[in-house]
Amino acid sequence: MDLDARALELDAYVFHSWSAQAKLNPFVISGGLGCRVWDNSGRTYLDFSSQLVNVNIGHQHPAVVAAIQEQAGILATISPPTANLQRGEAAKRIVDRAPDGFNKVFFTNGGADANENAIRMARLHTGRDKILSTYRSYHGNTGAAIVSTGDWRRVANEYARGHAHFFGPYLYRSEFWAQTPEEESERALHHLERVIQSEGPSGIAAILLETIPGTAGVLMPPPGYLEGVRALCDKYDLVLIFDEVMAGFGRTGNWFAFDGYDVVPDLITFAKGVNSGYVPAGGVIISDAIAHDFDEVVFPGGLTYSGHPLAMASIVATLDAMESEGIVENAARIGRDVLAPALAKLKADHPIVGDVRGVGVFWAVELVSDQASRTPVSAAVMARVKSELLARNLLPFLSENRIHVVPPCVVTDAEVAEAMAIYDEVLSLDLLS
Amino acid sequence: MDLDARALELDAYVFHSWSAQAKLNPFVISGGLGCRVWDNSGRTYLDFSSQLVNVNIGHQHPAVVAAIQEQAGILATISPPTANLQRGEAAKRIVDRAPDGFNKVFFTNGGADANENAIRMARLHTGRDKILSTYRSYHGNTGAAIVSTGDWRRVANEYARGHAHFFGPYLYRSEFWAQTPEEESERALHHLERVIQSEGPSGIAAILLETIPGTAGVLMPPPGYLEGVRALCDKYDLVLIFDEVMAGFGRTGNWFAFDGYDVVPDLITFAKGVNSGYVPAGGVIISDAIAHDFDEVVFPGGLTYSGHPLAMASIVATLDAMESEGIVENAARIGRDVLAPALAKLKADHPIVGDVRGVGVFWAVELVSDQASRTPVSAAVMARVKSELLARNLLPFLSENRIHVVPPCVVTDAEVAEAMAIYDEVLSLDLLS
Repeated sequence: MDLDARALELDAYVFHSWSAQAKLNPFVISGGLGCRVWDNSGRTYLDFSSQLVNVNIGHQHPAVVAAIQEQAGILATISPPTANLQRGEAAKRIVDRAPDGFNKVFFTNGGADANENAIRMARLHTGRDKILSTYRSYHGNTGAAIVSTGDWRRVANEYARGHAHFFGPYLYRSEFWAQTPEEESERALHHLERVIQSEGPSGIAAILLETIPGTAGVLMPPPGYLEGVRALCDKYDLVLIFDEVMAGFGRTGNWFAFDGYDVVPDLITFAKGVNSGYVPAGGVIISDAIAHDFDEVVFPGGLTYSGHPLAMASIVATLDAMESEGIVENAARIGRDVLAPALAKLKADHPIVGDVRGVGVFWAVELVSDQASRTPVSAAVMARVKSELLARNLLPFLSENRIHVVPPCVVTDAEVAEAMAIYDEVLSLDLLS
Repeated sequence: MDLDARALELDAYVFHSWSAQAKLNPFVISGGLGCRVWDNSGRTYLDFSSQLVNVNIGHQHPAVVAAIQEQAGILATISPPTANLQRGEAAKRIVDRAPDGFNKVFFTNGGADANENAIRMARLHTGRDKILSTYRSYHGNTGAAIVSTGDWRRVANEYARGHAHFFGPYLYRSEFWAQTPEEESERALHHLERVIQSEGPSGIAAILLETIPGTAGVLMPPPGYLEGVRALCDKYDLVLIFDEVMAGFGRTGNWFAFDGYDVVPDLITFAKGVNSGYVPAGGVIISDAIAHDFDEVVFPGGLTYSGHPLAMASIVATLDAMESEGIVENAARIGRDVLAPALAKLKADHPIVGDVRGVGVFWAVELVSDQASRTPVSAAVMARVKSELLARNLLPFLSENRIHVVPPCVVTDAEVAEAMAIYDEVLSLDLLS
């Protein structure tokens, strides 16, 4: 039996994330390099999904692969209480990229438990319980993380107390009857302050925000919004947590998405891009004020694989390669000079494109059945878009009525041109009939 | 600067699990092989902790290292929706070791999110909310997992609803005034049934149990207890979840700890031993009745690194090596023929040893200041025990007033003899004065 057939056969034993198990239609991926992945038969796809928007450095970066192979040969795992050189080197590299006043990293296995621990720190720091987050957000799948999440995935999981949701800015589908970015920002801040007052500031521990909400639609904060949230946190003495799991480590053309704004949070959560997910890892970067709470008092959280040497070695190699190869700068340049004009042209050429927004290699293209009403295209249309893109060997990231254009940060001009030609061809089809 | 000094210096950037950060006294571990680990200066320790009781196959098993290195060179990561051969191979090997009627594996990053997802499945399967678990337990550090946990670590984290706790059997410190294992079993089951009735069976989704509670003290279930819990779950229509994160994959001398009993649960959670933690991984093995709930309906849970190829390759290599090298059989033999008599002698020789219990390479030695009252020794005594063991180059696992004797499953007779001599020497010291 060939390897792809074998992989599909054995897939029957795998229970898949966020899926109805009898309705799966998986295809095999067995290898990759840079922005390409392939199956065993040699069929190759252009990866404009970065998988789950995590492979920022591209597939199989040789320096990261080599670092994993080397560390695997030395020491794969060791428990958290010990000191391990790779762990310290990884923490230092992360702290070096964070704002002044951040000097400690708590490592986790991924983004969900990063948010879990940030929430825990905020609650212990303030002695309060409630976490505010937006309806349009995704923060992970564990207890507190999934209830913080705003999207439909939280509803089936609402087995926790202490969470309230509010609406964030999203001018294209404003919840605030706003007409301009400035108006959207101002009204979203007014709404947030009313929610804070209504939920009771004395019971609120933190505001948890994706700096740029990702899966919810690459919702670019309008001018002054994040700065205004910071001001509200200061006014009401709330901890500000920025979830940089998807937006961080190069995706926006900055090390952190908030580097593009005049704002500093109190806690920063990360995963995905920090090592492109080559080894599961995530964490919390902790400001001194919160870190010092746990100098003499035990922090009541931890996990077996916190600071896992194999994961740490992959972080060290990833950040060093991103730095020395100018990968973050490439993401910024591609966004500004290549993707922005190309996606603007896509919008101009195709009436099905209602909105385009983003930065770096982090873009969303909203498909609508009617420009005036902004009616999202149906799930059936999106299924067609998916199959047409796959048929042309482009691996897309789709969410609701949107194509997220989220290639690795190493994407080249030529690869963007290749992808744009495919998007253009598919959007030229008679999709709405 | 030498590498150990550098590791300690950089450790300042690392925020450590379950610790007061100013009170750490970490030492460096930079490498290992089998039951030994060492620092860069060449100081070597005999690892009778298996780190956090996870390195079942020993450190740096060459076949697992080679599998990680090979897979790293092929494809480190791919998103969950795709089919990947290593993922299917890993799932099949796990299913092959589970009881009949278990045919699906949902992969996670570790034990906590395995329990999160098992709890989620139980709640969705039953349409009920409440999870019962024991006061003496540890189930992980995320939202629902930490609140399921019974030990002190849950108290600072109790930001979830839907959890209630009961007392499990523990004859040495019986909550039920029992004198014999049979009496402890019968009374613990009576107590559990009264809790079920009092919490209201129509609101209870599941009973979540470590098959053999680990960190809580290797609390061996007395005869008939687990079978009795199964009968109560059947009587009241509750899902039975066995947390095999620490006890599973060889530690007890069986593939699963429940293989030592006449009982089958509905969901099995695992992590640690499945790949000895060489790459972060965990998961849920799902019985058909629960898996089929999600054939046509979307399972509302998932994570970026579910079925991560690098982790999967390490699982495949670990389980194959454990099988072909008879590593589970070694754990059984060491427990029965070597550790059981050696620890019985330790108890006979040292009045500070109040109780010894366990199976395979999973043992607890309780230290007491008085045999009659069974008073646990103080934290200061345990700190002394720790430093004396470390001074003799034995890496111990200590919890409360106990030494957990938990070497890798590959431990040899000679290594047990070496460790026993060290335990004997330390317990011969005047510890109580």
